[in-house]
Amino acid sequence: MRISELADLSGVSVPTIKYYLREGLLPPGEKVAERLADYDERHVRRLRLLRALREVGGIGVGALRGLVDAVADRSAPVHEMFGAACDALAQAAGRRTDPAKSLDLADRLIERAGWTGVCPDASERKHLEELLEVIGSFSGPVDPDSLERYLKWADAIAEFELGTFSDPQQDRDTLMEQMVVGQVVYGELLLSLRRLAQQHHSSRRFG
Amino acid sequence: MRISELADLSGVSVPTIKYYLREGLLPPGEKVAERLADYDERHVRRLRLLRALREVGGIGVGALRGLVDAVADRSAPVHEMFGAACDALAQAAGRRTDPAKSLDLADRLIERAGWTGVCPDASERKHLEELLEVIGSFSGPVDPDSLERYLKWADAIAEFELGTFSDPQQDRDTLMEQMVVGQVVYGELLLSLRRLAQQHHSSRRFG
Repeated sequence: MRISELADLSGVSVPTIKYYLREGLLPPGEKVAERLADYDERHVRRLRLLRALREVGGIGVGALRGLVDAVADRSAPVHEMFGAACDALAQAAGRRTDPAKSLDLADRLIERAGWTGVCPDASERKHLEELLEVIGSFSGPVDPDSLERYLKWADAIAEFELGTFSDPQQDRDTLMEQMVVGQVVYGELLLSLRRLAQQHHSSRRFG
Repeated sequence: MRISELADLSGVSVPTIKYYLREGLLPPGEKVAERLADYDERHVRRLRLLRALREVGGIGVGALRGLVDAVADRSAPVHEMFGAACDALAQAAGRRTDPAKSLDLADRLIERAGWTGVCPDASERKHLEELLEVIGSFSGPVDPDSLERYLKWADAIAEFELGTFSDPQQDRDTLMEQMVVGQVVYGELLLSLRRLAQQHHSSRRFG
């Protein structure tokens, strides 16, 4: 299909598609003439994914490139691809911080949760430490005991979600789509449902 | 204290403080001379809150104003203040959509969850419907059964969190701080822990 049809089907404008092509976020189409390329269903899917990440997750081009790079290396084991995708998302969520920063609290929480599969240099550790500092700035130093329930919920949710991923033998693009939609869109879904449930319980408690 | 001390203590720059004063996000200090105002601990707290919302939640000035307005009306019952705060946050999270849009799926999910305390016109309904549409664009129309577990988790988390709020008789500023930090910062914490747990379970499943 032409680029204009690609724009119609994906809901992404032609100038944005051209920008993604230049930035390497979208693989080039098949060249059919000097200034004419042919695009297919894979391009539609990739654009739909980039659009969801940008609109739902508020994820910028830098982090999008990290995600695309993570899936592009087809020799890497699936677990590494997943770790790289997590990293790109953690960097998108995190503030710029001192790289030599202590990760004491975050490391203690991860150890307490028993998450031995988390990479020692995962960006998410730093992001977690930042969040714990923000919480501490309101209510004093964070007591890991008070977060026990959050660890259990996060563990139950992640275990369930990983169980829904299809066979790792299947094609990388599908797996990446599942991972990224799972991470970003279902993450937002969880927060949206939690806000609704909070409204309900607030009405029961204070209404 | 002077505005420069306020900036030091809150970690918010003087130009940003002046901007928040102009926008009404920060109440004015007590005037002690023609061009000199005196600020106190309440100003430090409010700035710390605005900073966390902006840095952690990525919440813009429009939604911040919604939050501040929600707490400013001291005659409103606590539950309404909570609903207004939820609304401001849902609008910050949501895309701009057709106001006449059908909310079929979102309404069915909320009914299924038994959240009768959610306002009929809550902005979060629209945001939920948008998320369900995005999910549907990847995997086909959403089956409410498949989201049963998310409803249960969201309900358990919200019920626990509402239980941790202090006495509604106490001052509004403290209650608002608890609500907003709870919503935004603990929401991000939940997502961060979930990403870490996903890395762990990915390593167990695919590693």
